Amino acid sequence: MKRNIKLTIEYDGTNYHGWQSQARGGGPTIQDTLEQALKTLCNEEMKTLSSGRTDAGVHALGHVACFRTSSTIPSAAWTPALNHLLPPDIRVLASEEVSTDFHARYSALAKTYKYRILSRRAQTALYRNYAWHVQVPLNVVRMRKAISYLIGRHDFSSFRGAGCNAKSPVRTMKSAVIRKTGEFIEFYFEADAFLRYMVRNVTGTLVEVGLGRFSPDDVKSILHARDRRLAGKTAPPHGLYLVKVTYPEFEKS
Amino acid sequence: MKRNIKLTIEYDGTNYHGWQSQARGGGPTIQDTLEQALKTLCNEEMKTLSSGRTDAGVHALGHVACFRTSSTIPSAAWTPALNHLLPPDIRVLASEEVSTDFHARYSALAKTYKYRILSRRAQTALYRNYAWHVQVPLNVVRMRKAISYLIGRHDFSSFRGAGCNAKSPVRTMKSAVIRKTGEFIEFYFEADAFLRYMVRNVTGTLVEVGLGRFSPDDVKSILHARDRRLAGKTAPPHGLYLVKVTYPEFEKS
Repeated sequence: MKRNIKLTIEYDGTNYHGWQSQARGGGPTIQDTLEQALKTLCNEEMKTLSSGRTDAGVHALGHVACFRTSSTIPSAAWTPALNHLLPPDIRVLASEEVSTDFHARYSALAKTYKYRILSRRAQTALYRNYAWHVQVPLNVVRMRKAISYLIGRHDFSSFRGAGCNAKSPVRTMKSAVIRKTGEFIEFYFEADAFLRYMVRNVTGTLVEVGLGRFSPDDVKSILHARDRRLAGKTAPPHGLYLVKVTYPEFEKS
Repeated sequence: MKRNIKLTIEYDGTNYHGWQSQARGGGPTIQDTLEQALKTLCNEEMKTLSSGRTDAGVHALGHVACFRTSSTIPSAAWTPALNHLLPPDIRVLASEEVSTDFHARYSALAKTYKYRILSRRAQTALYRNYAWHVQVPLNVVRMRKAISYLIGRHDFSSFRGAGCNAKSPVRTMKSAVIRKTGEFIEFYFEADAFLRYMVRNVTGTLVEVGLGRFSPDDVKSILHARDRRLAGKTAPPHGLYLVKVTYPEFEKS
């Protein structure tokens, strides 16, 4: 019986074409880079299962992937061994052996995303790849009211990106909060799962509220209309961070 | 009479060999890159005066440089014009005309630096160029006590780097505080001026206190001994940020 190893991974998505291996070329992906390191370590082709994809430019503080192996490398030793082989913009934070029925995607109870906005007029050098720079002031009070309508179980079709292949557009938003720290405004979203581009589409819509183009109540109407054309634009990828994926405790082996 | 233009600049120091132009090659500097953009804009050789140097890898949120010009470009228009020519890791935040006796370095009343530490065991991808990663836990209470001894007017010879050409090692530390936010520990230092490597040498010493190798009172003794050999190692450059340079109000023209 092959062992099932779970990896928690942080990455800077700036130089990658997202998480997932691409059928047609298009640039390096994080999955390809990780699987190449696993191949070097185990001397065999290795496939990983992931908690989900992230788009080009999106970052992760706690992405989760798992793989089957007959290697005898101790659970915790995968972390330094892989970090030795991986480029500096991909780091394994933790490695552990989990039960064979653990699946990085299907076992997940919830995911948390953060969307980071730099809200100021002056341009930015340091955060150019790490936040969406919005130069017109945003009204946080209005955005706080708007974001509250998203909490709960809803059909999120209005925020579903083209090409999303989820069977149902219904998701449960467990929490949605806004934190303002100096020039940064951060949205935190926790849901059982997310539709394609959902966080970026919600963020683009909340920013319209912050700019005064939509009222907070418009977000309620947009959500209920289940029509993507009514919501705001998709926020750019480089402000988005997959913060963590939550699993049941018993999945640990 | 040539006009005197003051620029406030943010930069990501990762890909530069510091601020200052180098006599012998060694890689691009921020000063060279800025002066090249000014030359393109004004069609003449341009020299800038700066609030000070920063070392390779050090970042700035508010570096200040000034230059003389007979150009008629309006004060505020230098910002977009230069940003159009500069690479994305150097951004002009503000441009203004100042009195002809304004000097970016000699007119400065104070400078503020931030030193950012990522304090956790797991490796980091996202902050690899933006914080010093210290993997052994740090005692913040001890570091807070130690940092308080640095406030006031002192001979900082114990924290003065080799090759420092300041006439006097006496500086006035106006404030020195520690902020802990999640996994980050940030030191903020405001002084009338700083000796070469002073913030990085102080930081390396405070980390020794946080690790338990020095007591807080040792920092007091090290300061009074005026002997660089007693202090801690120089902290790496990529955790250091020049936050701002303070000038008297009347320098504005």
